[in-house]
Amino acid sequence: MKVRNILGERFKERAFDIESQNLMTRGGYMKQVGNGIYSLFTPTKRIQNKIEAILREEMDAIDGQEVLFPVVMPATLWQSSGRFESIGQELLRFKDRSGADMVLGMTHEEAAVQMAMNVAGTYQKYPFMIYQIQTKFRDEPRARGGLIRVREFTMKDGYSFHTSQEDLERYYDRAFRAYERIYARAGVPEVLAVKSDSGMMGGKISHEFMLLCDIGEDSIVICPECGFRANMEACEAITENTADAELLPLEEVFTGEAKTIEEVAGMLHLTADKTCKAVVYQRNEDDSYVLVFCRGDRELNETKLTNYIKAKIHPAVDIENANLTAGNIGPVGLDAKATVLFDRSLVGATNLVCGANKEEYHLKGFNPARDLPEGTEFIDLTKAVEGGICPVCGKHTLTVRRGIEVGNIFQLGKRYTEAMGMTYDSETGERRNPIMGCYGIGVGRLIASVCEAHHDDYGPIWPITIAPWQVEICALRINDETVKAAADKLYADLEKAGAEVLYDDRPVSAGVMFSDADLLSAPVRVVISPKTLARGCVELVARDKSFTVDASVENAAEAVMEKIRIMTEAVLAKVPERK
Amino acid sequence: MKVRNILGERFKERAFDIESQNLMTRGGYMKQVGNGIYSLFTPTKRIQNKIEAILREEMDAIDGQEVLFPVVMPATLWQSSGRFESIGQELLRFKDRSGADMVLGMTHEEAAVQMAMNVAGTYQKYPFMIYQIQTKFRDEPRARGGLIRVREFTMKDGYSFHTSQEDLERYYDRAFRAYERIYARAGVPEVLAVKSDSGMMGGKISHEFMLLCDIGEDSIVICPECGFRANMEACEAITENTADAELLPLEEVFTGEAKTIEEVAGMLHLTADKTCKAVVYQRNEDDSYVLVFCRGDRELNETKLTNYIKAKIHPAVDIENANLTAGNIGPVGLDAKATVLFDRSLVGATNLVCGANKEEYHLKGFNPARDLPEGTEFIDLTKAVEGGICPVCGKHTLTVRRGIEVGNIFQLGKRYTEAMGMTYDSETGERRNPIMGCYGIGVGRLIASVCEAHHDDYGPIWPITIAPWQVEICALRINDETVKAAADKLYADLEKAGAEVLYDDRPVSAGVMFSDADLLSAPVRVVISPKTLARGCVELVARDKSFTVDASVENAAEAVMEKIRIMTEAVLAKVPERK
Repeated sequence: MKVRNILGERFKERAFDIESQNLMTRGGYMKQVGNGIYSLFTPTKRIQNKIEAILREEMDAIDGQEVLFPVVMPATLWQSSGRFESIGQELLRFKDRSGADMVLGMTHEEAAVQMAMNVAGTYQKYPFMIYQIQTKFRDEPRARGGLIRVREFTMKDGYSFHTSQEDLERYYDRAFRAYERIYARAGVPEVLAVKSDSGMMGGKISHEFMLLCDIGEDSIVICPECGFRANMEACEAITENTADAELLPLEEVFTGEAKTIEEVAGMLHLTADKTCKAVVYQRNEDDSYVLVFCRGDRELNETKLTNYIKAKIHPAVDIENANLTAGNIGPVGLDAKATVLFDRSLVGATNLVCGANKEEYHLKGFNPARDLPEGTEFIDLTKAVEGGICPVCGKHTLTVRRGIEVGNIFQLGKRYTEAMGMTYDSETGERRNPIMGCYGIGVGRLIASVCEAHHDDYGPIWPITIAPWQVEICALRINDETVKAAADKLYADLEKAGAEVLYDDRPVSAGVMFSDADLLSAPVRVVISPKTLARGCVELVARDKSFTVDASVENAAEAVMEKIRIMTEAVLAKVPERK
Repeated sequence: MKVRNILGERFKERAFDIESQNLMTRGGYMKQVGNGIYSLFTPTKRIQNKIEAILREEMDAIDGQEVLFPVVMPATLWQSSGRFESIGQELLRFKDRSGADMVLGMTHEEAAVQMAMNVAGTYQKYPFMIYQIQTKFRDEPRARGGLIRVREFTMKDGYSFHTSQEDLERYYDRAFRAYERIYARAGVPEVLAVKSDSGMMGGKISHEFMLLCDIGEDSIVICPECGFRANMEACEAITENTADAELLPLEEVFTGEAKTIEEVAGMLHLTADKTCKAVVYQRNEDDSYVLVFCRGDRELNETKLTNYIKAKIHPAVDIENANLTAGNIGPVGLDAKATVLFDRSLVGATNLVCGANKEEYHLKGFNPARDLPEGTEFIDLTKAVEGGICPVCGKHTLTVRRGIEVGNIFQLGKRYTEAMGMTYDSETGERRNPIMGCYGIGVGRLIASVCEAHHDDYGPIWPITIAPWQVEICALRINDETVKAAADKLYADLEKAGAEVLYDDRPVSAGVMFSDADLLSAPVRVVISPKTLARGCVELVARDKSFTVDASVENAAEAVMEKIRIMTEAVLAKVPERK
């Protein structure tokens, strides 16, 4: 294809702060149609087609069957799982011309169960996996970052069905490996799998696949020592307390206007880990209060709290209604109208300062083991911290990084098959609900994330396996007949050899031509100019700067094909074996 | 793939009247999710992927650039073309979480203009064509026939942009040929292009591609003599009248309760062609009346009338409000509050009977040329008829057939670029609106139509170029070790040779196995049984019954590959050259 014919304009001015959005806008990859809604120009669509081909191959290799579910679904389908009611506004609801309630598919568990229901009624049909590559719509309140977080997107979503947890786990392992292969084939083998919280999907075990980069919305906890990885939301927090030799008695201390942990610790010349903090929430459903005590230097993990109390929450207001004294709440002598919980960070702590439940006063000498009622339960409700203890190897090695989620896999269990009444006859003749797994990858998000992780100041640096074109011919001074003849011939030769070729034969300056080539980002660039021809050569330049070499004019096509082969093999060398 | 692993059940009971819906339901190709909304099982998705690959190749070959537009669009985009208001309920409108008006894309002219706007500002960028393959939603009031008429469907839609009508026409010809190639490659070279009415798309010249079959919703007018073809909606109607030697005077005649043409002609012993009929409509916008006179044996073509008066219409009620006498309306002495139009079928007619505008009376001796005011315009407003005159060759050869529309192409002109203000700088420096063409094919509709046109009582007969699998191995008596060994080996050999293979190794009867194979419909079937092995052979059977031959066990894979090659070439032999 000729550069002059590509619809879409490239420009130099910085367009957005987030680099992938900036470069993909400047490169003519996409255009906004509405909030979080984009049209994709042909370079992006070409990347998308390549990723879709990888997805199909890897899903088929783990016995996936490609199917197609509808984008628009009747509300009754979502009512049958209970999610029509339980999911918020991100599920777009509307009425069709007959007045029937409909939804736009943001995920397709219900559709997968509806498809499999009645056609998988005996155990012999199991296991099976069905997947689709289809448009989804999620009415995100905060679309951002171009294709990073949108409302409409193309997604590969798969659903597996099993007759036992063991079978699901075996399959989950295969899917996990397929995901590793997908990212490696797409040129981002550095994608990390982390344990995650299952959220609204309603299962137990799940993993997110994360591409680390600073603009990521997720915090990832990593142990470089043993390889442990988890999303902050799901990471067990371990706190070590060293007991003081002597337990001090409880004693009131005047703290006046000091309310925050910082203020109180500062006034009493303590470090925050020698304090006990109170955090108050309210349940969304009835505004009832939830009060959590944790060590003063720890931060509450709202996901853990939500999962534990099985209710959605928001930070509390008007806490005097719960008989609480703002800034002076403490676990001793408490008479609160609230669910009171204690975090594990308090286990083994001694001689803490906590609120006295009295204006202007705190208590010194709070010793949880001594001062809390026998049988008090300590729950993991706080966040892991930088330098904290790894839950696997036990060393103080944890580090926290930012990441973009580029895929996820869930063990769903019977959540949907039970709710929707899907059953099969087991080998022993009983009616049972199948056990499900699900497997998602957002294609546009992956493209933007690859760009975020692989770019320079001048443009994306696409891995050759997903680059829109493998090679671009830059013909400098096209009005020079020898340049035109050599470039035309190389274009024809490369097309014939099966390469995906861009050809820039515009009469523009080298500056314009190269900056466009940086944005369109073919991994191999061939420069043909009077200067290179004078030495009987064309110049091969890697977009990732890994080489700049001459090739003879006669041998140019072969030299390019060889570079394409080598670069492709370098990507594929990092792809793990199938399981 | 093994038949036992395909999700979806096959059964024998007749499920629906329309044969494609019946067979594709019985064959486990699809499942209804809602009214006009289907999930597609893997056999259908495989067909769809093959058709999509053909579409991509043919669109790329006419310099199309694949892009992706959104399914969900802001209403403002459709307001900018005026179609948010002008299109009825089939455009699904809703509000997003922020209260903004949105629509579900039923076609993407606006999105195409929005994408091209500002990035094609000079004449050098033209022509170009962008296309997508994407989900569409059209809130059809009458979904029917399985995938024949649905609400949600996958469509290939392309949009070309030009700087002159000549350039559009040149490109339109190439697209036309690409469409012929697409249908031929999909195994239905019999698809007919017919001239069509442009309807809401708002252009002048357009063609529909029709697959003839009895369940079709369109009437197609064909001249077998000269090859003329048109949709009934757009077919010029030509009527020959032989003038009587003597023109009779106007004379009232008592007709009593006779009101219809049949009753009046019967009472007066005339044929219907010697009468003049009145048909009354009202404009939807203001209920004003439109009265059309035509020859009594002709039928009004509502599409032509709508196009002529540029207003939507409905059959009239309460015509006394227009000062009309039901059943006795005539063109002479008429004092109607209505737009009065005369059809071309009246030109040259003599001595007709028409209404006398008076209860219980008609007029004899109506001679349009004599009795209508000078300068009366006669317009083409009626339908062509079986045995009628071909507008091209002039012979009385027209025949009317039913057809399913499986694609369409339109010359849109400046309808959208003017409305939305898209311009470019011409070679002479003027701001101009580009001229557009558009090109659509519904993928699911095409699949169902191929099934409708190519099936027998036992299942679809898929052309080999789009069949979900090319070959199926039927291993009869799989418990026989020699059968299993031969079948397993052939399966492995064929997969290795690159064939798309189904393998039925279920321990089921020949009856069940063959009826399933008829429904899944691989073009080549290989039967392996103790009987065939006893003679050292496997049996190759064509799904279309074109052959039943033995092949030696050793040579089985080669024989199958040869049959696949021959059947594929037979399809491709009917594909016309590119233009």
